[in-house]
Amino acid sequence: MYISLAHGDGGELTHKLVKELILKYLRHEALVNLGDAAVLPPVAGRVVLSTDSFVVKPLFFPGGNIGSLAVNGTINDLAVSGARPLYLTLGLILEEGLALSTLEETIKAIAASSEKAGVPVVTGDTKVVERGHGDGIYINTTGLGLGLEKAELGYEKIRPGDAVIVSGTVGDHGLAVLAARENFGLTGLESDCAALHGLILPLLEGFPGQIKLMRDPTRGGLATTLKEIALSAGIDIYLEEEAIPVKPEVRGGAEILGLDPLYLANEGKFCAIISPEAASSVLHFLHEHSLGKKAAMIGEVAEGKGRLFLRTPLGATRELFLLSGLQLPRIC
Amino acid sequence: MYISLAHGDGGELTHKLVKELILKYLRHEALVNLGDAAVLPPVAGRVVLSTDSFVVKPLFFPGGNIGSLAVNGTINDLAVSGARPLYLTLGLILEEGLALSTLEETIKAIAASSEKAGVPVVTGDTKVVERGHGDGIYINTTGLGLGLEKAELGYEKIRPGDAVIVSGTVGDHGLAVLAARENFGLTGLESDCAALHGLILPLLEGFPGQIKLMRDPTRGGLATTLKEIALSAGIDIYLEEEAIPVKPEVRGGAEILGLDPLYLANEGKFCAIISPEAASSVLHFLHEHSLGKKAAMIGEVAEGKGRLFLRTPLGATRELFLLSGLQLPRIC
Repeated sequence: MYISLAHGDGGELTHKLVKELILKYLRHEALVNLGDAAVLPPVAGRVVLSTDSFVVKPLFFPGGNIGSLAVNGTINDLAVSGARPLYLTLGLILEEGLALSTLEETIKAIAASSEKAGVPVVTGDTKVVERGHGDGIYINTTGLGLGLEKAELGYEKIRPGDAVIVSGTVGDHGLAVLAARENFGLTGLESDCAALHGLILPLLEGFPGQIKLMRDPTRGGLATTLKEIALSAGIDIYLEEEAIPVKPEVRGGAEILGLDPLYLANEGKFCAIISPEAASSVLHFLHEHSLGKKAAMIGEVAEGKGRLFLRTPLGATRELFLLSGLQLPRIC
Repeated sequence: MYISLAHGDGGELTHKLVKELILKYLRHEALVNLGDAAVLPPVAGRVVLSTDSFVVKPLFFPGGNIGSLAVNGTINDLAVSGARPLYLTLGLILEEGLALSTLEETIKAIAASSEKAGVPVVTGDTKVVERGHGDGIYINTTGLGLGLEKAELGYEKIRPGDAVIVSGTVGDHGLAVLAARENFGLTGLESDCAALHGLILPLLEGFPGQIKLMRDPTRGGLATTLKEIALSAGIDIYLEEEAIPVKPEVRGGAEILGLDPLYLANEGKFCAIISPEAASSVLHFLHEHSLGKKAAMIGEVAEGKGRLFLRTPLGATRELFLLSGLQLPRIC
């Protein structure tokens, strides 16, 4: 059974698809209503919105798939912005000829990730495009969160001397997807795809005022994300190359392919700029959590004008820039 | 100048594209920040979320384009759900080889529609897929609204005897897009693409308790939408064919192509189930507004089990069903 154009015309087949395949797994009351929108309970507080489209290729890869990525990616964008994720929306663009079983596996993964994270999908939309005008499945997830009162994040809070931390090894996701797509025969690679709000929210609440800024280093990797932070905050950042956690198989695989793990995407990591006094207790806190076991302090903030430097073990210092022309599209 | 894969890798070209092309037109403070999410002011009340992906082909058509459609479509989904639209998110999936000028015209249209409607785009995301894996531009817009206290809409409020109204002529959008795509040589057709919250919100506030349910009859057209309402409410609906407003050029064009205007998409119309006592004052109210001039009472609700009937001028009655196999994909 395959997706046909008629699945997208809003008529009988669209209804059948939504009711029999999608609502079989996603069952939030507002979604089951099938209205034009989800009418939800009252909230009070700062609202936080994040949107992300996912076009990853292949759809399934070691450690995750486009469904788990779409749920966790948007949850993480809310969490690093200091918000408790409340709800997700789900926009599907399906390609004519897609196997219904592939769609079903994807919806199952969305449901499982959403349930595990405690963040329900409350409304959705399904469109179909002709064969050759899509690539199986594209997904948009948009998330609504409520800002934590204790999270006062902002570029303007960053000061020279602040510590730079990362919550674990870098490059896992980007290299795993690339290896799965290109069939490089590299083994032992697995995406780090995971929802981080269970780690981030207690961290923000436990260290009020100590966490200055958080980001999740997805596309462009850790280096691009830290360079963006340096530019936005108008400071320089110095990284210690030896302190940055990289799995041996990622380091090895990246070396073979001529890639730099610092520019490979992550989907289950965050980086943060924190007060230097809090650094050791923050790391201790992170190490207690399964998603933060490899957290490390990797550098510090200095006065400057938006530059990012890497100190190598041999004592040399080289400047890092935004990802430029590496051409690793569609890793998320 | 064209979109390349590197515009989607999250590095330097992505930044340049977003800063120089997108932020040139979309300038909400939260968006300009370029964080992972938009942190917005506090709200208090029922939150309403709606999401929609747009894959319309062609991207530009008489009366609108994919950009105006994406903004107005999501605003309308919130409005018919009884919510004041507050914010939009914007997810772009661009195809390698897309002319930057086409993207710029689309972003301009998004900015113009958003500004006209008073509903800003507060956060966004841009992805690029290889040539032959997209179709120029796909857009997801997700909207956040706040439920009006006076809007108590719900299928369970619908009673036999209630009046069925539509806010204007039907079939305009679907036929205009189809004619533009297939180059049928039909003239005088124009999409009705428009944001309706300026008409709907005062209506809901002016007639508290009188409006039982509203929907915007997009994909599947008026007939599919009313059939869905009949099914969800567990009632029957009888329509008077002669009372349904259809522009002569739409009626003529649809006849030539063997299409039924009742199944063609609308993008600037709503239908509503209202108390019979309020019908004449509601119509009077709608006729005063530029987007409601052709509003009409087109039928009534009867006891039943989810069937939709059309009474013809000759006195015959035929049953209408969900759109089935008409195969008019990608009209929104």
